[in-house]
Amino acid sequence: MSCVFCAIVAGDAPAIRIHEDEDLLAILDIRPFTRGHTLVFPKRHAVDLTDTAPDTVAAMAVLGQRIARAARVSGLHADGNNIVINDGKAAFQSVFHIHLHVVPRRNGDKLSFAKGVLVRRDTDREESGRLLRTALAQLGEAAQD
Amino acid sequence: MSCVFCAIVAGDAPAIRIHEDEDLLAILDIRPFTRGHTLVFPKRHAVDLTDTAPDTVAAMAVLGQRIARAARVSGLHADGNNIVINDGKAAFQSVFHIHLHVVPRRNGDKLSFAKGVLVRRDTDREESGRLLRTALAQLGEAAQD
Ligand SMILES: [Zn+2]
Ligand SMILES: [Zn+2]
Repeated sequence: MSCVFCAIVAGDAPAIRIHEDEDLLAILDIRPFTRGHTLVFPKRHAVDLTDTAPDTVAAMAVLGQRIARAARVSGLHADGNNIVINDGKAAFQSVFHIHLHVVPRRNGDKLSFAKGVLVRRDTDREESGRLLRTALAQLGEAAQD
Repeated sequence: MSCVFCAIVAGDAPAIRIHEDEDLLAILDIRPFTRGHTLVFPKRHAVDLTDTAPDTVAAMAVLGQRIARAARVSGLHADGNNIVINDGKAAFQSVFHIHLHVVPRRNGDKLSFAKGVLVRRDTDREESGRLLRTALAQLGEAAQD
């Protein structure tokens, strides 16, 4: 098993899970740009936008929206989010199992964001995960499982 | 009418159109990071991920995927794409009518990409638009209208 996301899906590699359903998994990025930086990906391996089913891309985007909304109402107090799919090595994709980034942002965070892009560390990832899961539950996540 | 994207939808402001259907419009960014940099947005005004219907977000993502695939097979010869929604002012959103960026990328373009982010100019936008529309048609776009 050489794909780290497939290993996480299989339970063979650790991750802080934010959301899991039949088709998708959402976990915290281990090298986050900001607190709560989350990756959404399909459980079934696909590489990039050339081989991922449109329905899967749609589901990833909808879950990304839900996590972005959760980040705003969560204890992370996000004021916005960057939603990003890097499609291909030319576009900075580094793990070749398609994924969508949700990067919570705060007003006036430009400098700390720039630092975050360099440092990519969260000193309390467990707490970040808890805050997002709590907010997703508030948004009715629990009712949908 | 103070929203530039609503003005474009209404035909009151110019744009180079890449795709149009009942719900969505895709146009070239007038200040592109790279050639073919496209914006996908709903015809019906919404601000960001907090007030856009999930179905609309899904449709935007699927059209973004189609344009990304078109950019790869097009005369723009993209090797990949960045797909981005900036959700909120804190996340660099500058036009407050939700939109998804498709930024075609090429292998080894890091320096020209960085320059493009500063300069944001395409000296032949009409040709870029033609190349993308042709590729979309090749991908079966025409059959879906
Ligand atoms: Zn995989
Ligand atoms: Zn508008």
